[in-house]
Amino acid sequence: MKVARTVEEIRALVAQARAAGARIGMVPTMGALHAGHYSLIDAARSAGDFLVVSIFVNPTQFGPNEDYRTYPRTWEADCGGCEAHGADAVFAPTPEVMYPEGFATTVHVSGLTEVLCGRYRPGHFDGVCTVVAKLFGAVGPDAAWFGRKDYQQLVVIRRMVADLNLPVRIEEVPIVREPDGLAMSSRNARLDRRERPQAAALSRALREAQVRVAQGACGAQEVADEIRTGIETDAPLGDIDYVEIVDPATLAGVERIDRPAVAAVAVRFPSARLIDNMLLTPPGR
Amino acid sequence: MKVARTVEEIRALVAQARAAGARIGMVPTMGALHAGHYSLIDAARSAGDFLVVSIFVNPTQFGPNEDYRTYPRTWEADCGGCEAHGADAVFAPTPEVMYPEGFATTVHVSGLTEVLCGRYRPGHFDGVCTVVAKLFGAVGPDAAWFGRKDYQQLVVIRRMVADLNLPVRIEEVPIVREPDGLAMSSRNARLDRRERPQAAALSRALREAQVRVAQGACGAQEVADEIRTGIETDAPLGDIDYVEIVDPATLAGVERIDRPAVAAVAVRFPSARLIDNMLLTPPGR
Repeated sequence: MKVARTVEEIRALVAQARAAGARIGMVPTMGALHAGHYSLIDAARSAGDFLVVSIFVNPTQFGPNEDYRTYPRTWEADCGGCEAHGADAVFAPTPEVMYPEGFATTVHVSGLTEVLCGRYRPGHFDGVCTVVAKLFGAVGPDAAWFGRKDYQQLVVIRRMVADLNLPVRIEEVPIVREPDGLAMSSRNARLDRRERPQAAALSRALREAQVRVAQGACGAQEVADEIRTGIETDAPLGDIDYVEIVDPATLAGVERIDRPAVAAVAVRFPSARLIDNMLLTPPGR
Repeated sequence: MKVARTVEEIRALVAQARAAGARIGMVPTMGALHAGHYSLIDAARSAGDFLVVSIFVNPTQFGPNEDYRTYPRTWEADCGGCEAHGADAVFAPTPEVMYPEGFATTVHVSGLTEVLCGRYRPGHFDGVCTVVAKLFGAVGPDAAWFGRKDYQQLVVIRRMVADLNLPVRIEEVPIVREPDGLAMSSRNARLDRRERPQAAALSRALREAQVRVAQGACGAQEVADEIRTGIETDAPLGDIDYVEIVDPATLAGVERIDRPAVAAVAVRFPSARLIDNMLLTPPGR
């Protein structure tokens, strides 16, 4: 496995692979890799010929009061994991490589970025879209894998890729969970002993909503209220940013769950902000 | 020469050419082709293997009070010209292909777009950057040719391409002029019998400034004032948007012309807004 630090280096590796007829797969990450990331890497590995994992903690997607500086960084373990899971190259640029003096470009997706996490993290999705466009520009993958854990990000990236005619196929991979249901996240490592058990409240409340909807509950407000109550009861250390039930494609809030909808939650614990989501499917759909 | 109307069609043509080992050159245009465009096409033709000319009058780069609806459209002549100058394919998407229902993405370059024409045409360069990113995404050229006539556009596109790591080499081509010095522009066709001779005032005043600077004049304000007076005298039908002397790379205004600078002007005639620019080079530089 090769490690590339500059755009020129990763381009040379990819050009070499392409010249040999390889299709290029990519998994963009911010490192601190866990089983969720490795499920993306495994999916990409089995689909493509030459697999690039990017590791870059992107400063522009963090707000001024967010956790850029304390975001977990586990470089040695990440490289070992990438190699073990069959990556051909890791692209790990520095912030100076990505954002040199004079950098001035932003990719903005309107609408989809103004709801859910976008409402609580202004500028976050501009940072995400811009860095993903850059990473795609630098690597030139045929396909890239994203997790459903960051559901809004997935929808926004699909929109950007379609809108800019980027020649990249976007693939999605289900959420990987801990035994108690907590969605895998690099930020979970920051939860303390009191927070960690309470963090399972998100998935538990979502799962209960999933069951209720499968049994016929269809009032979105009522289902959202139950999720909220479940989290408030089981996670007193958490402050809820939002509990929303939205259309899977447009992310617009729904009133009646008469076709599949996504329930999405964000909860701020003292040590980390967590998000989770599940598809709610009404009976017979 | 093939004509592609959809992204799928142009991608198929380009993929076929690439499979045969061709390098892809591109000239993005809004049609109404003139000798300036053909100089771009000729330059691209001599440099590359497979040449795509795009023809798309991009609605998003026109302001609400600008001339989108009346912009010249000369499709048959454009196709004949492209074929005669050796284009392999014309990519001519419809607005619906480029901006389907739900389109939501904007590429924005800050700073460089806030001066010169950007000050008078809010949103113009967002439209330009977004459509050029899309055209590059759709076609996937190795290199693309732009004219120095739209000097600010050239600098902004170079910035965007560098910032997003787009794998496209940007090439520039000098302004082509009419015998009286008027810079070639599709909008020149709209000038009436009284405006047309006055339009030569822009290049005449710029040329005089070029001579003055070559002879040692170095006060930017003084040189700009002379350009302004020259245009006001010779083109009473024109309203000047700006006369500016700027750094060629940053587009920041300069006070002393002690290294090469660009003099850029924009003048509104009743029938068309015209722009022009020239490089001012002090003696010995």
